Amino acid sequence: MSQSFHPSQRTLMGPGPSDVSPRVLEALGRPTIGHLDPEFIGLMDEIKGLLQYAFKTENELTLPVSAPGSAGMEACFVNLVSPGDKVIVCQNGVFGGRMKENVERAGGTAVMVEDEWGKPIDVNKVADAFAQHPDVSILAFVHAETSTGVESDAKALCQLARDNDALTIVDTVTSLGGIEIDVDGWGIDAVYSGTQKCLSCVPGISPVSFGPRAVERISSREHKVQSWFLDMQLVMGYWGGNTKRAYHHTAPVNAMYALHEALVMLKDEGLENAWQRHQLHHKALVAGLEAMGLSMVVAVESRLPQLNLIAIPEGVDDAVVRSELLSRYNLEIGAGLGALAGKAWRIGLMGHACNQTNVLLCLSALESVLAAQGAAINQGVAVPAAMAVYS
Amino acid sequence: MSQSFHPSQRTLMGPGPSDVSPRVLEALGRPTIGHLDPEFIGLMDEIKGLLQYAFKTENELTLPVSAPGSAGMEACFVNLVSPGDKVIVCQNGVFGGRMKENVERAGGTAVMVEDEWGKPIDVNKVADAFAQHPDVSILAFVHAETSTGVESDAKALCQLARDNDALTIVDTVTSLGGIEIDVDGWGIDAVYSGTQKCLSCVPGISPVSFGPRAVERISSREHKVQSWFLDMQLVMGYWGGNTKRAYHHTAPVNAMYALHEALVMLKDEGLENAWQRHQLHHKALVAGLEAMGLSMVVAVESRLPQLNLIAIPEGVDDAVVRSELLSRYNLEIGAGLGALAGKAWRIGLMGHACNQTNVLLCLSALESVLAAQGAAINQGVAVPAAMAVYS
Repeated sequence: MSQSFHPSQRTLMGPGPSDVSPRVLEALGRPTIGHLDPEFIGLMDEIKGLLQYAFKTENELTLPVSAPGSAGMEACFVNLVSPGDKVIVCQNGVFGGRMKENVERAGGTAVMVEDEWGKPIDVNKVADAFAQHPDVSILAFVHAETSTGVESDAKALCQLARDNDALTIVDTVTSLGGIEIDVDGWGIDAVYSGTQKCLSCVPGISPVSFGPRAVERISSREHKVQSWFLDMQLVMGYWGGNTKRAYHHTAPVNAMYALHEALVMLKDEGLENAWQRHQLHHKALVAGLEAMGLSMVVAVESRLPQLNLIAIPEGVDDAVVRSELLSRYNLEIGAGLGALAGKAWRIGLMGHACNQTNVLLCLSALESVLAAQGAAINQGVAVPAAMAVYS
Repeated sequence: MSQSFHPSQRTLMGPGPSDVSPRVLEALGRPTIGHLDPEFIGLMDEIKGLLQYAFKTENELTLPVSAPGSAGMEACFVNLVSPGDKVIVCQNGVFGGRMKENVERAGGTAVMVEDEWGKPIDVNKVADAFAQHPDVSILAFVHAETSTGVESDAKALCQLARDNDALTIVDTVTSLGGIEIDVDGWGIDAVYSGTQKCLSCVPGISPVSFGPRAVERISSREHKVQSWFLDMQLVMGYWGGNTKRAYHHTAPVNAMYALHEALVMLKDEGLENAWQRHQLHHKALVAGLEAMGLSMVVAVESRLPQLNLIAIPEGVDDAVVRSELLSRYNLEIGAGLGALAGKAWRIGLMGHACNQTNVLLCLSALESVLAAQGAAINQGVAVPAAMAVYS
């Protein structure tokens, strides 16, 4: 007889998924209703309003794509890029590379603007790219690079795009709910995110929002969107507010319960309070890590509070440390990706996982495992240093 | 303050989502772990094995796509269709039309073979289409049409495709777990399904399987797959068995718990037993409906036991009846789609929802509502007729 699966109770402090609130898990398991049930239609309206709050936008076309963040990214690119379009893609980590793939698979040409992994996007380089390629119609970049823990200046980049008559596609997978995003204030045209980071929800859904200029671009397309599943002209018929809901695909009903609950929690806390909470625990974590003698990879002014890149000390075995943390402390932290593989750890403080208990657990566990590995660290000082931030 | 959402407890006897087992809902809400956690990797292996059991296949490339059935459909088409390919698409309901969209958006040409809605695919017509178009490389059809409740002869159609050196793409969204599917025995090359029908799981995931000929076609593609998210060459790196798991996208971890539990339940019951259960309750439902004086839309030999098309009696208001069933009995049945809108109801008996209690509830509620609407039906005989089938 086959066995049911019972996962261990982990503490998720990697790059996501992050800890999910018990309230969200409980909502997820509520009885399934039909995707055309009047009660579900009401829920969809509420989710739309809550997403508008989270993104700080009044965009009518704001909805959760029924698939992970990668599909949200693809939804933005396949709807806005037509064959022959030229798109500036900023790359300072893994996800800029994925954007390039998306542009090319949609028949566009990507003009790459590259920055070192661990550094923010250089706005001047992007300005140069616009100057060299006046026919660029879209600027695409990652606000918060999940692979490096770096924040780029989304507001300045969006202004630059406007000055050059280009639309913007902005990846906010790791930023939404953790640091400021102001879709309307910054003039972002298309944005996508994920549920499994600072929204404290289960993975699998991608909130997106399209502004008026993006909707106009979609409506005036000459080529059909290459994806039927992600075609916003069709999806609008189901999620749009004014007309009768037209069946497009079966919504992931229970995942919508979870997302709704997570967004209700975010609204009750308040966006600004959530951002401040991420800052506070980030400072405590960094104080503890630095007291231990570890160093941060990213410069202070570009650090994401919700994703902390720590240099792996000389002579320490990356995989052994992560494995010990997982097996002995049920604590997950993230490995480095790409250019940072084996050189850095990624410690997440995202959403529900961003709290004092997790900060202290992480510092104690890391100290203990590193000491056992013979690393040259200062012992007994990390937790007091973190607690000093809280007091 | 925003409010949590508490859905009514519905009985889901529409075209899906169907009732989800409490075991599956409980599994869904278990604590989230990381998508690269060794425990999760073990779970993925089990899910793959259980899906191979459900599909009756040894295909190595068998996995759940992290999105609804529409995305599973698109995964099959974008990976197998290259620009310029000619594909025979059979249409005898809504989903054949969606297949056509998929072929064309992937740059292929669709040769349509159309049959009346409510009738199965005519194998002779498909043979004629192959004769007229010897350069066709793929045959695509729906095994169990969700819009009409009709089963087509998948075995004969697959044999015909083999005889003409064409691959097959088969939609089994509504059939998997409800009626026989034999992927290896019938020689299906690519198949997709959904979790929210006869698997008794929540909506949002699409199991797929690709056979050796399909994998060979994918591996020898000259054009990159137009979707990054659905590119099986990339997904294989994460779901493939032999190599180190490569990060592709964040798996919907909790949905995988639910799918695993649903598949464990299916295996414990046994595929053949599940098919027999669907037949039994279908017979009871039909006996009751016919005793009441209602008539079935689909001929006996093509009826799907899990999705029953009932002709709406003259003078009865479709929407009022469904609305009364929902508001007074918490019972959802489905409207007709496309050519059958307003003319038929779709009553599902899928997976966990396929049981004696639901059959009797449906018959009693429908009798009561129709009588109140003044329909000319026989009262007091439906439940005894159904019970006679059970005794």
